[in-house]
Amino acid sequence: MFSATIDATAFRNALASVEVLVEECRIHVDSDGMRLRAADPALVALVDLTLDAEQFEQYEASEAVLGVNLERLSEILSVAETGDTVRMEFDERSRKLDVEVGTLSYTLGLLDPDSIRDEPDLPDLEPPAEVTLDGRHIDRGVKAAEMVSDHLRLAVDPDRETLVIAAEGDTDEVLVELGRQEVAALSPGPADSLYSLDYLTAINRVIPRGQTVTLELGEEFLAGFEFVVPEADQPVTYRVAPRLQRA
Amino acid sequence: MFSATIDATAFRNALASVEVLVEECRIHVDSDGMRLRAADPALVALVDLTLDAEQFEQYEASEAVLGVNLERLSEILSVAETGDTVRMEFDERSRKLDVEVGTLSYTLGLLDPDSIRDEPDLPDLEPPAEVTLDGRHIDRGVKAAEMVSDHLRLAVDPDRETLVIAAEGDTDEVLVELGRQEVAALSPGPADSLYSLDYLTAINRVIPRGQTVTLELGEEFLAGFEFVVPEADQPVTYRVAPRLQRA
Amino acid sequence: MFSATIDATAFRNALASVEVLVEECRIHVDSDGMRLRAADPALVALVDLTLDAEQFEQYEASEAVLGVNLERLSEILSVAETGDTVRMEFDERSRKLDVEVGTLSYTLGLLDPDSIRDEPDLPDLEPPAEVTLDGRHIDRGVKAAEMVSDHLRLAVDPDRETLVIAAEGDTDEVLVELGRQEVAALSPGPADSLYSLDYLTAINRVIPRGQTVTLELGEEFLAGFEFVVPEADQPVTYRVAPRLQRA
Repeated sequence: MFSATIDATAFRNALASVEVLVEECRIHVDSDGMRLRAADPALVALVDLTLDAEQFEQYEASEAVLGVNLERLSEILSVAETGDTVRMEFDERSRKLDVEVGTLSYTLGLLDPDSIRDEPDLPDLEPPAEVTLDGRHIDRGVKAAEMVSDHLRLAVDPDRETLVIAAEGDTDEVLVELGRQEVAALSPGPADSLYSLDYLTAINRVIPRGQTVTLELGEEFLAGFEFVVPEADQPVTYRVAPRLQRA
Repeated sequence: MFSATIDATAFRNALASVEVLVEECRIHVDSDGMRLRAADPALVALVDLTLDAEQFEQYEASEAVLGVNLERLSEILSVAETGDTVRMEFDERSRKLDVEVGTLSYTLGLLDPDSIRDEPDLPDLEPPAEVTLDGRHIDRGVKAAEMVSDHLRLAVDPDRETLVIAAEGDTDEVLVELGRQEVAALSPGPADSLYSLDYLTAINRVIPRGQTVTLELGEEFLAGFEFVVPEADQPVTYRVAPRLQRA
Repeated sequence: MFSATIDATAFRNALASVEVLVEECRIHVDSDGMRLRAADPALVALVDLTLDAEQFEQYEASEAVLGVNLERLSEILSVAETGDTVRMEFDERSRKLDVEVGTLSYTLGLLDPDSIRDEPDLPDLEPPAEVTLDGRHIDRGVKAAEMVSDHLRLAVDPDRETLVIAAEGDTDEVLVELGRQEVAALSPGPADSLYSLDYLTAINRVIPRGQTVTLELGEEFLAGFEFVVPEADQPVTYRVAPRLQRA
């Protein structure tokens, strides 16, 4: 059983966070809330997002797994205007999700959850270094790196106590170096890894500018990106596997 | 003979109303005003628009028919800024239309009216049901229907006294139901027909949001859509033929 | 040796003025300032832009020529926010240009100046006619001409003392005629030439609306377009060769 009502913009933002990595997703619901966790087809990046029951205007659920086409569900939500809520109810017999936004009722056919790629476990890692900074800096670093390369280096310079976002092309090089005065918090440690821009560009699309993002970094490390989903007031976490550094 | 001056935005909006169905159109002028009536190539939808002589700043015409490429005429008007007027004069010898917008003079070659598809008569029908509502609701219904199907059902539920906008896909269903509190006026009667979204999507593009539209509905009925063209202060009427309902 | 700091928006606008004609450009620097002069591949149009040393916040240079990919340099500048400055330093050993915008450091590989097309001399011509007018009028004339033709006529009517922007298509004609009350200044003289819209459309893209542009015109004349680059406070000059008039 599942029935819930939530601010449409909050829910749309939450879905968008997941949609940058996958098209289809299993939504786990139980009495505590809703959980979306998914990995991209190549198993390089993983997203994990929880919407606690308290974030909903109304929420009631027994344990269930819904297989959802995220693009379609987002499209339905796009008819919402600011302030609209979305009401969802799972019809167990038909295995369809009734979605109501304002005067619109949409009956969404669900996917067989077993047909959707299994989500890997989120490893519990102790990050050697951690940096909290405005999303704007990540945007700038990612966009600059895209000009010269298809991967990006995230490192912490232990002596200068700076976050280093760098990329190297055939003729050109990009370096964004952020010191303590440019970031909100920096706990230095050994950190230097290379990541594919494919994933960072996708994640950067939903990183809120003007809000803080926490980076968990290390050497050849499964990097972590965590920030609060706008309007949804709940954190989303991404993990991105490193690429091998050139020798 | 034909010479007229009118607010450029009003005229552009009037042309846009017709352009969603046809590229070329016969413009009939006489001392009362200007009339555009056209049907799409498949003869499924028809548009009818009159600009009374009083809507013009200056107007003088004897009976004539001008064959006009609407896209080209709209393009000329697109150089206008808010508040600009457009001055038109028909040169009978050259069979060209002189169009002046601000400092721009454009000599528009006209088409042979006989080369343009004949416009059918607008049947005078007594609609079984009529609903007047904000264009926003139609926009929402059409966009939601596009997600699941290529046709849309317009019906009036006589018991609940609601307007029903519905569409059915292979797995998903869409339903917008508007009661008396959501519409401006509703005169119920037997009404249930299916329409091709091709035409409703086209017409929806020029339906003004925040302004009322009157729907004339019935069973297997040539639906009517009527609203006032923004700035032009004149009504435009569309008729759309129904599709056969699935048995 | 070359090192300079300048407002990022001013520099971006300056580069944009040149980029509409060429992708790569030689930048000449010396103690007086920076000079960009380039001709399009077909040698029909030429651009000439100087940034005096005084326009920079910091400027120091001995004579040098830098071969620059303008698109790439503009892309780097696009990360700048309003008020940001750009710092450039030429590394003579590596033949690279270090570009710093905010926290971003970009090492730009330079091109061999000898690999870039030679820029022709800017002839010193005495224009028979000169018109100074708002860039908006040129925009309107160019856009209207694009509707009917691939070239545009610029002429001065000596009797009516008007600037004539005209174009002729197979069936349609466009005419923009601007009298003394519509332009800022007009010094009439024999002027009537045809120009390819390819070039005028490109130049029009950077002509500032609401600011004055000076046109130098004549018969079969290498037309001149001159205006002040927004924010950079320095003039840019274009020369466009006439096309042969139809007999």
